[in-house]
Amino acid sequence: MNFNVAVIKGDGIGPEIVDQAVRVLDAAAEKSGHEFTYKQILMGGASIDAYGKPLTEETLETARNSDAVLMGSIGGNTTTSPWYRLPAELRPEAGLLALRKGLGLFANIRPAYLYEELKKACPLRDEIIGDGFDMVIMRELTGGLYFGERSTEVVDGIRVAKDSLTYNENEIRRIAVKAFDIARKRKKHVISVDKANVLDSSRLWRQVVEEVAKDYEDVTYEHMLVDNCAMQLVNDPKQFDVILTENMFGDILSDEASMITGSIGMLSSASLAEGKFGLYEPSHGSAPDIAGKDIANPIATILSAAMMLRYSFDLDAEADMIEMAVKKVLKDGYRTVDIMSDGMVQVGTKAMGDLIIERI
Amino acid sequence: MNFNVAVIKGDGIGPEIVDQAVRVLDAAAEKSGHEFTYKQILMGGASIDAYGKPLTEETLETARNSDAVLMGSIGGNTTTSPWYRLPAELRPEAGLLALRKGLGLFANIRPAYLYEELKKACPLRDEIIGDGFDMVIMRELTGGLYFGERSTEVVDGIRVAKDSLTYNENEIRRIAVKAFDIARKRKKHVISVDKANVLDSSRLWRQVVEEVAKDYEDVTYEHMLVDNCAMQLVNDPKQFDVILTENMFGDILSDEASMITGSIGMLSSASLAEGKFGLYEPSHGSAPDIAGKDIANPIATILSAAMMLRYSFDLDAEADMIEMAVKKVLKDGYRTVDIMSDGMVQVGTKAMGDLIIERI
Ligand SMILES: CC(C)[C@H](C(=O)O)[C@@H](O)C(=O)O
Ligand SMILES: CC(C)[C@H](C(=O)O)[C@@H](O)C(=O)O
Repeated sequence: MNFNVAVIKGDGIGPEIVDQAVRVLDAAAEKSGHEFTYKQILMGGASIDAYGKPLTEETLETARNSDAVLMGSIGGNTTTSPWYRLPAELRPEAGLLALRKGLGLFANIRPAYLYEELKKACPLRDEIIGDGFDMVIMRELTGGLYFGERSTEVVDGIRVAKDSLTYNENEIRRIAVKAFDIARKRKKHVISVDKANVLDSSRLWRQVVEEVAKDYEDVTYEHMLVDNCAMQLVNDPKQFDVILTENMFGDILSDEASMITGSIGMLSSASLAEGKFGLYEPSHGSAPDIAGKDIANPIATILSAAMMLRYSFDLDAEADMIEMAVKKVLKDGYRTVDIMSDGMVQVGTKAMGDLIIERI
Repeated sequence: MNFNVAVIKGDGIGPEIVDQAVRVLDAAAEKSGHEFTYKQILMGGASIDAYGKPLTEETLETARNSDAVLMGSIGGNTTTSPWYRLPAELRPEAGLLALRKGLGLFANIRPAYLYEELKKACPLRDEIIGDGFDMVIMRELTGGLYFGERSTEVVDGIRVAKDSLTYNENEIRRIAVKAFDIARKRKKHVISVDKANVLDSSRLWRQVVEEVAKDYEDVTYEHMLVDNCAMQLVNDPKQFDVILTENMFGDILSDEASMITGSIGMLSSASLAEGKFGLYEPSHGSAPDIAGKDIANPIATILSAAMMLRYSFDLDAEADMIEMAVKKVLKDGYRTVDIMSDGMVQVGTKAMGDLIIERI
C-alpha cells in the first residue's frame, strides 16, 4: 500500500534526526512492499520565517489530507529567551498548539521505558529501579489550560492575567477510553492523576474515569493526586503501568517520567485523533546547542516512526521490524554520545541510522 | 518575652509529632527565658467532627490573634477515597485553604535539603547528588487555580467543569520580593518557574519577576518552564538555590523536590503573611497507616517550630539551638525508622524528642 506522510522537520536537531527516520521507514517499506510518500510542511519558527505565521491554513490542510504526520523536535531555548514577549500569533508554540487542535490530536501517548542496556544512565539508584519500569503516560492534549480563554488586562491600574481550565465529560471520556484500551494490552493497571481536592475539573475527571472503568472489569485503576504522583515517579516508578491525566499535569509528569528513564533521547511519542490519524514525534527537545553536528540521537524519532506504522497504518510487522533493529543495535554495543558508556562504540546520527537499517 | 502560639495538631501522626515539637519549644524557652503559650484549635477533619465544618470563624479569629500557628500534618488518604464526593464545604482541605486565605499566608517556603548523614536514602545516584544540594521552593499560596472561580454545570446535557487561574501584578510582586530576599541570604540565585509559552498568567509572572529583579543586582535569576523544571530536579538538582513559582506548580514541584532528598520526614515548611505572622508545618503528609504507633519522625515538625522562632519571633539564637540539636542527634547516630540505616540506633517518636531536648 501507499501511505502519505506529512513531514515537519522542526528546529535544532529536528532535520537531521527526521532524515534518519525517513531512511529507516524507506528501508522497512522496501522489505515489505509498501510505499511511503513524503510531503514536507513547515510549522513553528520555520513557518514564521517563510510565511510570517507559525501555521498556515494550507499547511494544516496538507497535514489533514495526509495519512499521518512525522515530526522532529520543535521549539528553541527553554530558559531565558525573548519569545514570550512576542504576540501570541507569532510564537512558535502557537503553531504546535494550533496543529494539535486543528488535527484533533487529543490523545498524547508517551512511553517511559527503562532500557536494560542503559540502566546506568538512569538517575535513580539501582534499589529503586529494581527489575526496571515500563510505563505509558496518556496525556489529554486538546483541552484544559492550553485551550482555555485567557486575558491580560489593566483593572484599576493593576495588571491582571487570567487563564481558564475547562473540561467536559466527552473530552474526559474519550481519553479515558484510550487509556483503558492501552492498559488492556499491557499490565492492565491505570493510575488516573488529578487534583480533585482542589479543582472542579478534576472532580469531574474522577467521576468520568470511574464511569469508563466500569466497562473494563479486567483493568484495575486508582486515582492519585498530582503532587503525590510527582513524588511517586521518583520514589517508586515500578508501580506505574498507564498514567492517565489532563493536559498540563501530563506535560509536567511526562517530562519527569522521561527523565527518570535516563534515556530521553530514546523515547518516542504519538498524538492520536479519533480514527487512525496521528502525529508522531520524539519526546525530547530540539537541543539547538548540538544541532547540525551529526551527534544527536535519532532513535526516539525512529521509534516514533515505528509507532506511526503501528497506530496509523496497522503495519505491526513492520513496526516490530524497526523496534527489533533498534534493540539489536543497542545489544551490539553502538551508542550515540548521549547514551555512551564504557566499552561501547560511539557513533554519530547518520551512522546510527545506517546501523539500524542494516538490521532491518 | 511571651508568645502566643495557636496549635493545630492535625490528622494521622499529627498529634504525636506536634507534641514533640511543643516539648522542644518549651525546652528552648526554658534555656532562653522566653515563654510560649499554646492554644489548641481545630481544623479539617477534626473540626468537621466537632463543629460540622472544616474551619469555623472563631477558630480563624483565634489563629489571627495568635503570634503564629504551629500545625501537624493534615489530610487523609491521597489515593482512592470518597472525600471528593463530599460537598466542598465539608472537605477537610477546604479548611486548610480557608485558613491560608483567611490568614493571608501568601508565601510558602519549603526547603529541600540533602542531609549529609542521610545521603544513602536519596533516590538519586551518587553521581547526580555530587557534593549535595540545598534549595528552597518559594510557592505562592493564596492565588492561582486554588482560589479561582469554579463551576460544574450541565450544558446541553453535557457535564462541564471549569476552574480559573488568575494572578495580578501585586500578588506576583510580593512573592517575588520574598524569593529574592531569601536568595540574597543564600547562594543569590533565583529560578522562576512558569509556563509562559502557554499561559497569560505566566507571561505576566515573567514580566513582574523581571521588574522585581532590577532591585536585586546582587542576585542572578533565570526563567524555566515548569516541564523542564520537573526534569531538571531529577537530572541536576544542584543547579537550584531558590525556586520561585505559582501555587499549583509549587505544589507539584515542592513535593518532587522533597522526595529527591530522600528525607521527607525531615523537611519543614513555613507559610508567611505580610509582617511577622506565619504558619509552620512539616512538608510530609499525615501517614494515617503509622499513626499512634510512636514511630513517626517528629523532626520535620521540630524544625518547623525552629522556623517559627526565626521568622515570626525573631529568636534566631533559639532557632539555631534547635537546629544544632537536631544535627547533633543525627551525628550521634539516632534515627527514626523512616531514615534508619545500618549501624544506626533506631528510636521512636517520643525518644527522638527526648534526644533532641537533651542536646538543647
Ligand atoms: C512546546 C510546548 C507548548 C509543549 C507543551 O507544553 O505541550 C511541549 O512542552 C510538549 O510537551 O509537547
Ligand atoms: C491538601 C492540599 C490542598 C495541599 C495543597 O495542594 O496545597 C497540600 O498538597 C499541600 O501542598 O499543602
